[in-house]
Amino acid sequence: MPYPAWLPFLLETPDLTHVSTPLELAQKEINLGLQALSAGIKGKVTCDPALPRDAYRIVKSEQTVQVHGGSCGVLYGTYEVLMALREERDFPEGLQTPQYPDRMVNCWDNMDGSIERGYAGKSLWFSGGRLQYDEQRILQLSRLLASVGINVICLNNVNVHEPAQDLIDLQLPDLSKLAALFRPFGIRLMISIDFSQPMRHDLSTADPLSHEVQAWWKNRVDLVYREIPDLYGFLVKADSEHRPGPFTYGRTHAEGANMLADALASHGGKLVWRCFVYNCTQDWRDRKTDRPCAAYDTYQPLDGQFRENVILQVKHGPFDFQVREPISPLLLSMQSTNLAMELQLAQEYTGQQIDLYTMVPMWKELFQVLPKDRLCAIAAVSNLGASDCFTGHPLALCNLFGYGKIAWNPSLASGDVVRSFVRLSYDFSQEDRESLTGCMLESRAIYEKYTANLGLCWMITPNQHYGPNPDGYEYQSWGTYHKADRNAVGIDRTGSGTGYTLQYPEALRELYANVASCPDELLLFFHRLPYTFVMRDGRTLMQRLYDDHFEGLARAEQLTKTLCALPFPERDRQEIQRRAALQVSNAREWCDIINTFFHRFSGIPDEMGRTIYD
Amino acid sequence: MPYPAWLPFLLETPDLTHVSTPLELAQKEINLGLQALSAGIKGKVTCDPALPRDAYRIVKSEQTVQVHGGSCGVLYGTYEVLMALREERDFPEGLQTPQYPDRMVNCWDNMDGSIERGYAGKSLWFSGGRLQYDEQRILQLSRLLASVGINVICLNNVNVHEPAQDLIDLQLPDLSKLAALFRPFGIRLMISIDFSQPMRHDLSTADPLSHEVQAWWKNRVDLVYREIPDLYGFLVKADSEHRPGPFTYGRTHAEGANMLADALASHGGKLVWRCFVYNCTQDWRDRKTDRPCAAYDTYQPLDGQFRENVILQVKHGPFDFQVREPISPLLLSMQSTNLAMELQLAQEYTGQQIDLYTMVPMWKELFQVLPKDRLCAIAAVSNLGASDCFTGHPLALCNLFGYGKIAWNPSLASGDVVRSFVRLSYDFSQEDRESLTGCMLESRAIYEKYTANLGLCWMITPNQHYGPNPDGYEYQSWGTYHKADRNAVGIDRTGSGTGYTLQYPEALRELYANVASCPDELLLFFHRLPYTFVMRDGRTLMQRLYDDHFEGLARAEQLTKTLCALPFPERDRQEIQRRAALQVSNAREWCDIINTFFHRFSGIPDEMGRTIYD
Repeated sequence: MPYPAWLPFLLETPDLTHVSTPLELAQKEINLGLQALSAGIKGKVTCDPALPRDAYRIVKSEQTVQVHGGSCGVLYGTYEVLMALREERDFPEGLQTPQYPDRMVNCWDNMDGSIERGYAGKSLWFSGGRLQYDEQRILQLSRLLASVGINVICLNNVNVHEPAQDLIDLQLPDLSKLAALFRPFGIRLMISIDFSQPMRHDLSTADPLSHEVQAWWKNRVDLVYREIPDLYGFLVKADSEHRPGPFTYGRTHAEGANMLADALASHGGKLVWRCFVYNCTQDWRDRKTDRPCAAYDTYQPLDGQFRENVILQVKHGPFDFQVREPISPLLLSMQSTNLAMELQLAQEYTGQQIDLYTMVPMWKELFQVLPKDRLCAIAAVSNLGASDCFTGHPLALCNLFGYGKIAWNPSLASGDVVRSFVRLSYDFSQEDRESLTGCMLESRAIYEKYTANLGLCWMITPNQHYGPNPDGYEYQSWGTYHKADRNAVGIDRTGSGTGYTLQYPEALRELYANVASCPDELLLFFHRLPYTFVMRDGRTLMQRLYDDHFEGLARAEQLTKTLCALPFPERDRQEIQRRAALQVSNAREWCDIINTFFHRFSGIPDEMGRTIYD
Repeated sequence: MPYPAWLPFLLETPDLTHVSTPLELAQKEINLGLQALSAGIKGKVTCDPALPRDAYRIVKSEQTVQVHGGSCGVLYGTYEVLMALREERDFPEGLQTPQYPDRMVNCWDNMDGSIERGYAGKSLWFSGGRLQYDEQRILQLSRLLASVGINVICLNNVNVHEPAQDLIDLQLPDLSKLAALFRPFGIRLMISIDFSQPMRHDLSTADPLSHEVQAWWKNRVDLVYREIPDLYGFLVKADSEHRPGPFTYGRTHAEGANMLADALASHGGKLVWRCFVYNCTQDWRDRKTDRPCAAYDTYQPLDGQFRENVILQVKHGPFDFQVREPISPLLLSMQSTNLAMELQLAQEYTGQQIDLYTMVPMWKELFQVLPKDRLCAIAAVSNLGASDCFTGHPLALCNLFGYGKIAWNPSLASGDVVRSFVRLSYDFSQEDRESLTGCMLESRAIYEKYTANLGLCWMITPNQHYGPNPDGYEYQSWGTYHKADRNAVGIDRTGSGTGYTLQYPEALRELYANVASCPDELLLFFHRLPYTFVMRDGRTLMQRLYDDHFEGLARAEQLTKTLCALPFPERDRQEIQRRAALQVSNAREWCDIINTFFHRFSGIPDEMGRTIYD
């Protein structure tokens, strides 16, 4: 059953015979779309080689709408026309260009068909150790991605498990066929590679300074580009969570990345290097090492040492996609290096596509502190899988949609993005649309309230990352502690503590380091405070912990009630209702367990006399 | 490489051609053994049909040692002769008979070759969904079992996973062949069955009162006994941890067990019914339900309702094989029911055959409160697997050896049993023997000190059951809580609490319910006490928690040092040393984490000023 998601008027996939460019595809799509929408106007698309690749301009006359665009922009403009018509809004005026030229999705698909941190079923393209897919579903997905301007997809897990090394080797011909499917949509492939791959081919080392290794990669890249001339490049997770990397050979990450970048350069390929290095075998007794410091400590000294075609891909926060983290100081400090910010659409710590969690408001907070031009690209870990709607929870599609929109234009308002998604996806009354939009816009705040408020992180069930387990990470090796005891909770990350705040530019450093100015939402991220600490609103820290959790649960109950009353099509209704029931029971567990956990420590009763289980 | 364990003089397995009875085997073994031991005497074995099956008498003249025995006793007497010669001790005088006629080992082997809670490698007899084994290893193992009088082996996991149902169906011919291998050793097979098995054969129900179901089982049992006429019987885990059972049909466990027992009766088969029923989906908020009460509550009212050939198999404690539990009150209360006590050789919660943990002293404590004649049989979950020495840790073999010895004669002293094992297994000096015996005899006390002293249970890592995780079970559904908070720890299980102590006969009830008389080792099992509680020795509860953990770690370090200095044969040395290093690091984690956990709650410093990490 096709699932065209936010393009419900495009029920059939286009016939790609004789179609190999976005222009050719756009010509088909505009006709298909205008017909399906009964728009009563004609469409015309033309490519203007003078325009930047992704740019477009929409010109409307009485009977016709014209899209002039760059080689990819022509297709983006086409989808924009169709979506604007569906939304009954005006076409955007003037030349439209994206904020970031490269808007990437990273899929963590393994070749056995599983997906690391996947919550939407099996892989859409891997099975049994090889590329294997339903072509129609790939076309459907490509159309969704292109409609919001996503133009790079990394197909395989950054943790490169066998036989994924073969993607740039024995399985290259198959990969090339899949690249051809994505190509008319303006989507280029990227492949995660194994830094030690030369050693699978009779080399005794993967040392980036070895001439033999350099030659091996050069030759390998040449072979790859012979099959896929427009490959975007390689993505690398090195020296991170037990992956191989240049540290083995006493080399820096600049040396490691540059070696690969040199091999890619003549083909115009990019080398995307993830900055996710930290000590994952930390002793919990060690209070000097503070994991949030790790990325900055490792990479900041290398600023300026990377090749032109290297992009450092930095997670948005210093930990790992928690509900609330301050922005990574590394993103604010590498003045002479190409940076991409990494977001995570997969709801690893944020409800696993069971709990409703719409991310656009969260990303908007990042752009409030991140100068837009700091990045040359943006990336997001995929929330996709082979479930009917691609994302398990039908409303999790909004995170894919919103990601594309925000990656194109970070200035868009959250409400506008979500409202567009709702309007496009469902034939609801104005009232129901606003109701659903409201649910989605407040969903992150609600999840935060019942799970990890005030910047508390890592109270989630280890490994699985769903549901509460307040002490679960407390004695483990991941560097993820809250150090709650009978008096206080949190870690002092200011200059008098671990020094993490010193990594920030002055304004943020002051903001965060000062208890009086630190935002409530990050208070326990930066500070260790007694339960009796009086917050800005006059309540004690303990009371705020209780209040927020009770409020989060109550609002989750209300949210799911509202959601379940909406007239979703049968297709989505069952999935949404089933998940809503699970979300409420998850919220109840979080609320009661976190409250009990802190009550056992503090002994302080709830001022409102609500039930805290003992 | 053969591993004859405590029978090191029996390097070769006997040739079983023309051997089908214990008598025939005994005639071979006595010659093989006396020759290997260069004993300089002749052996003679004769079967005396007038003697009880397992009984034997050893008569020695100058040149000859004679064994007169019952049909199996003749073999037991033979091994006793050989072991006494090896140990350079006298033969036992007079007629030797076992305390319990049925001495069983329960193997939790799955047919894919894995073993539930197995810490000694893969299954010795299952692989790829069928029976598949190295005949020599089966013979080696059978000889070990028979040498200590074990006479029943249940081959498959009580959690019957597919295709283990086929053991009494399609795979019956293969099972019969394996039964023939065990038969000369006096070992009878038992099979764990799936209570719902009739429903795999076109029946719509497994209701024990359905005539159709009764007829199905009768017919099935007849088919089984046609192939294996001396099968011991069936073992059943019903209505336990999501297994099917009579509760589905509103029937009692007496009705369920009796139906199967009736099918087995005409063949002399036994029906062994495990009493491990409790609510494994308990809400942690529920403080009324107390899991230790469950077995008694379920089974005590059924006393007297079971058939003659039903044996209720009751775990030795009310929980599940924790380091320290009081004896199960069910074992003290079923006056009109056949009972077997279930021990666990597999070191699930007791160090997983990494940490040294010799169980004989623990079992001896049980027999101090359990009248010997309360049981008709004794069972133990196996610690066996396909590792070289059968038990992963070579010294874990002592638990198998000791189990057989104690099952035959519960009056044996721990020291004598362990000393025998050491003497038989290793060619050590007297001093080294005593040193090893000492290590083994104190190993349980040491493990208890650094893991879960004073009767604290379930502070172990959930699911995996190795290493500390003090709050790991605290908010889960398994009914396993300690309820530690800033003031106190433990659960009041007396009449003023959950009422668990009321299940005991008066003397024990008083002993346990009274804080003044309750043994230290069980104090926090039965009572909730503040950290400031003053123990009999004058120390506070908090100080005892610290002291015991530091002492446990220090003694573990000393223990492993002593162990590593002993002149084990190369065969064992590496395994023992590798495990000793892991034990020390495990002990350190337990010590530091438990101390930190309680210090965070209590805020009470260690009086000795040792390091408690914050």
